[in-house]
Amino acid sequence: MLYPGSFDPLHLGHLDVIEQAAELFGGVVVGVLYNFAKDSGLFDVDRRVELVEASTAHLPTVSVEKHTGLTTQAARAVGADFIVKGLRTPGDFEIEQQMAQMNHSTAGVRTVYLPSSAELSFVSSRFVREIAKYGGDVAHLVPTVVAEALATEFADRQQ
Amino acid sequence: MLYPGSFDPLHLGHLDVIEQAAELFGGVVVGVLYNFAKDSGLFDVDRRVELVEASTAHLPTVSVEKHTGLTTQAARAVGADFIVKGLRTPGDFEIEQQMAQMNHSTAGVRTVYLPSSAELSFVSSRFVREIAKYGGDVAHLVPTVVAEALATEFADRQQ
Amino acid sequence: MLYPGSFDPLHLGHLDVIEQAAELFGGVVVGVLYNFAKDSGLFDVDRRVELVEASTAHLPTVSVEKHTGLTTQAARAVGADFIVKGLRTPGDFEIEQQMAQMNHSTAGVRTVYLPSSAELSFVSSRFVREIAKYGGDVAHLVPTVVAEALATEFADRQQ
Amino acid sequence: MLYPGSFDPLHLGHLDVIEQAAELFGGVVVGVLYNFAKDSGLFDVDRRVELVEASTAHLPTVSVEKHTGLTTQAARAVGADFIVKGLRTPGDFEIEQQMAQMNHSTAGVRTVYLPSSAELSFVSSRFVREIAKYGGDVAHLVPTVVAEALATEFADRQQ
Amino acid sequence: MLYPGSFDPLHLGHLDVIEQAAELFGGVVVGVLYNFAKDSGLFDVDRRVELVEASTAHLPTVSVEKHTGLTTQAARAVGADFIVKGLRTPGDFEIEQQMAQMNHSTAGVRTVYLPSSAELSFVSSRFVREIAKYGGDVAHLVPTVVAEALATEFADRQQ
Amino acid sequence: MLYPGSFDPLHLGHLDVIEQAAELFGGVVVGVLYNFAKDSGLFDVDRRVELVEASTAHLPTVSVEKHTGLTTQAARAVGADFIVKGLRTPGDFEIEQQMAQMNHSTAGVRTVYLPSSAELSFVSSRFVREIAKYGGDVAHLVPTVVAEALATEFADRQQ
Repeated sequence: MLYPGSFDPLHLGHLDVIEQAAELFGGVVVGVLYNFAKDSGLFDVDRRVELVEASTAHLPTVSVEKHTGLTTQAARAVGADFIVKGLRTPGDFEIEQQMAQMNHSTAGVRTVYLPSSAELSFVSSRFVREIAKYGGDVAHLVPTVVAEALATEFADRQQ
Repeated sequence: MLYPGSFDPLHLGHLDVIEQAAELFGGVVVGVLYNFAKDSGLFDVDRRVELVEASTAHLPTVSVEKHTGLTTQAARAVGADFIVKGLRTPGDFEIEQQMAQMNHSTAGVRTVYLPSSAELSFVSSRFVREIAKYGGDVAHLVPTVVAEALATEFADRQQ
Repeated sequence: MLYPGSFDPLHLGHLDVIEQAAELFGGVVVGVLYNFAKDSGLFDVDRRVELVEASTAHLPTVSVEKHTGLTTQAARAVGADFIVKGLRTPGDFEIEQQMAQMNHSTAGVRTVYLPSSAELSFVSSRFVREIAKYGGDVAHLVPTVVAEALATEFADRQQ
Repeated sequence: MLYPGSFDPLHLGHLDVIEQAAELFGGVVVGVLYNFAKDSGLFDVDRRVELVEASTAHLPTVSVEKHTGLTTQAARAVGADFIVKGLRTPGDFEIEQQMAQMNHSTAGVRTVYLPSSAELSFVSSRFVREIAKYGGDVAHLVPTVVAEALATEFADRQQ
Repeated sequence: MLYPGSFDPLHLGHLDVIEQAAELFGGVVVGVLYNFAKDSGLFDVDRRVELVEASTAHLPTVSVEKHTGLTTQAARAVGADFIVKGLRTPGDFEIEQQMAQMNHSTAGVRTVYLPSSAELSFVSSRFVREIAKYGGDVAHLVPTVVAEALATEFADRQQ
Repeated sequence: MLYPGSFDPLHLGHLDVIEQAAELFGGVVVGVLYNFAKDSGLFDVDRRVELVEASTAHLPTVSVEKHTGLTTQAARAVGADFIVKGLRTPGDFEIEQQMAQMNHSTAGVRTVYLPSSAELSFVSSRFVREIAKYGGDVAHLVPTVVAEALATEFADRQQ
């Protein structure tokens, strides 16, 4: 079972999906996807992997890998027939359903969805980056190591 | 793992979810839900159970049970911590997400979703009942035993 | 080309679709659908046909017929390979898309959609019935003959 | 400012809207709507009013009234130019937007929306009724007096 | 009460929200948001402020300010506990609801929504910019001063 | 009747719309839209036109033209009062409805929609480009000439 994403950065909604997947499937590989050509995000892929590893250290059946290319290629690389995605909103669902049907059609890889917890349904990496950039408080939205990494990153940028 | 529903009648979209769930989770209990007070549907619950059993006879890890009351009570009765639902459209998702969050909040039962296959994304029991009632062709939308049961049912009614 | 619906009652959003369809397709048959078993609406089918006829008297390529059974059976009865539906909201679209794909799958009948005008996008027969019932003003939402029929109907009921 | 609804029963999502509206608008009239012809819900209108009054006793600028007929007629009866509605999901929004535009078009009454809190976004009166009916726990979803009324109601029914 | 946005340019849908907000809340601060790093739009922030001021000169309780950073920081700067947003479509709602819940969660700032008028529900700044760029007619979609500014801007560009 | 789009590249969902439109309207002009300023896609406009022409060579009432500027200007240039668009998802619909109402409001051009086939409802040019770029199989999603052009293009890029 592969849980793919950018995780730039990992937030508590992601961690909730990882914990559910580990319980339901007996383990999960978190695949941190990156793109050689463009990487306009916040943390580079190795830093993102470190932060996911630090945030899931308490979960022995969770492993973390970086991958580039298609999600279905990452799934094949880790020997997974299924990928898991979290769903927060109807808009999420609409995009994910198209990708799930495309992935099944082109590569035989299936998808399973886990619902977000209601109280985390508004959290996205984009909002976390935006708020942290302007000094807003995200400590209740991300794991502690991510909150510290964000604080350091934006303190460095402002000097 | 419980797959709850009315299955009045079972159609090929349901069967696709059952087959995916059996593969992914190593087995699934199909829970045919009924309601003492109102049962305004097509087949009674025992007939619906028979049709699901006949349609899943080739799947040894699938069992079928009837249940009444709340879905979470049915999940507890079969020893399941998770229920599985199929998702066809954003409207499906919106309702299911509310039920999933409610079921987790009130009973600690979690939900996992499986996407419908694209070519079955328009099939619903309501449409199947409506078309069969007026003599339309549903043989490509339901298992063979269900098609036969529908033909018999509406032949009987028209006499 | 068939434009099917309940038209209980016809409103200006319907009339806009009829006028667009007559222009685009060179004519249209308005199919007023009814159901022997339940007819819990406002006007009976013959009255609904009269009101559509009166409201489209200025459109020589529009005809009006009543039909029961499936929409695809009505389409076949009038020799139409396509049916036309108006779309107001994403929720309308979601239901209509399922019906369109079902109708194509089961009967080979295709569907074409016309967008509602923005300023009529909130008008529905259900709201018109509800408002008229309590004496609210719907004269700007329905053709004049329908406004008169509603006024008469509810005046009669309150006596 | 009128906050209309069925409130059968009032839940914590409703109460959150009432508290926000009282703060934002300096007071609000809760309008409990009922229908002479059909009242297939759980509590009768006078009991629903009592439960809203008991649940808002700590809010001196909130009053509660029962109304029948159109929402816009209730708004006029209390001297309100605006009504307030809570929004939980895109499906809620789609329906409410049509009603808001209809109410403005037919009666000049405007609408303002308040977002639900994320952690209450799945709570509806329908789900609360269903869960309480089968003995599930709703104490964290409704005010205490409503939880007690539900327990009494269904204890009585089961005798 | 803060009404934040890019207003690049202000259109009649925005103006409708401003007029409703001024009536409902007794006044509103229009916050024209800009971003030092990227400003790939049409008019610079000072020009956008001028156009909003000129278009709201008839509304004495409306003031206009430019702000950068987070919306919640702009709200705090003007002493507002609530921000107001217009809603046109379910897609608007889905994004705004996430931002509203995020803003409440991270900064204690609440949000109130006003529905767009039906006949303006399709108007967006992006469409206005696109149409004006190619010489299309937008005079019925924006205030007169904005129509003049667009005509001048694109006449200059084409020389 | 104009069918406008980027067609970068044409896929089987597009071809299905073209075939339906040719049957329903007795012919259609496919308008390949391009933009002088930015053309960040895959194939240049002349290559896209060639691929649409090659893929529709069996349809004598279909012609292909390139256009820049507004869709409504392209419609006027080919003498069309209506444009036709395919609809796959509620998200598609929401955007298209705004454009349809804008195009009618600003230029008097009307829009008609055709539903996608269920089994092609997940296919988009963006997904096709992404999968082809990483060597995935898209032969079942695009016409043969497009599959060949994609294979050549990405073979060239990787040298």
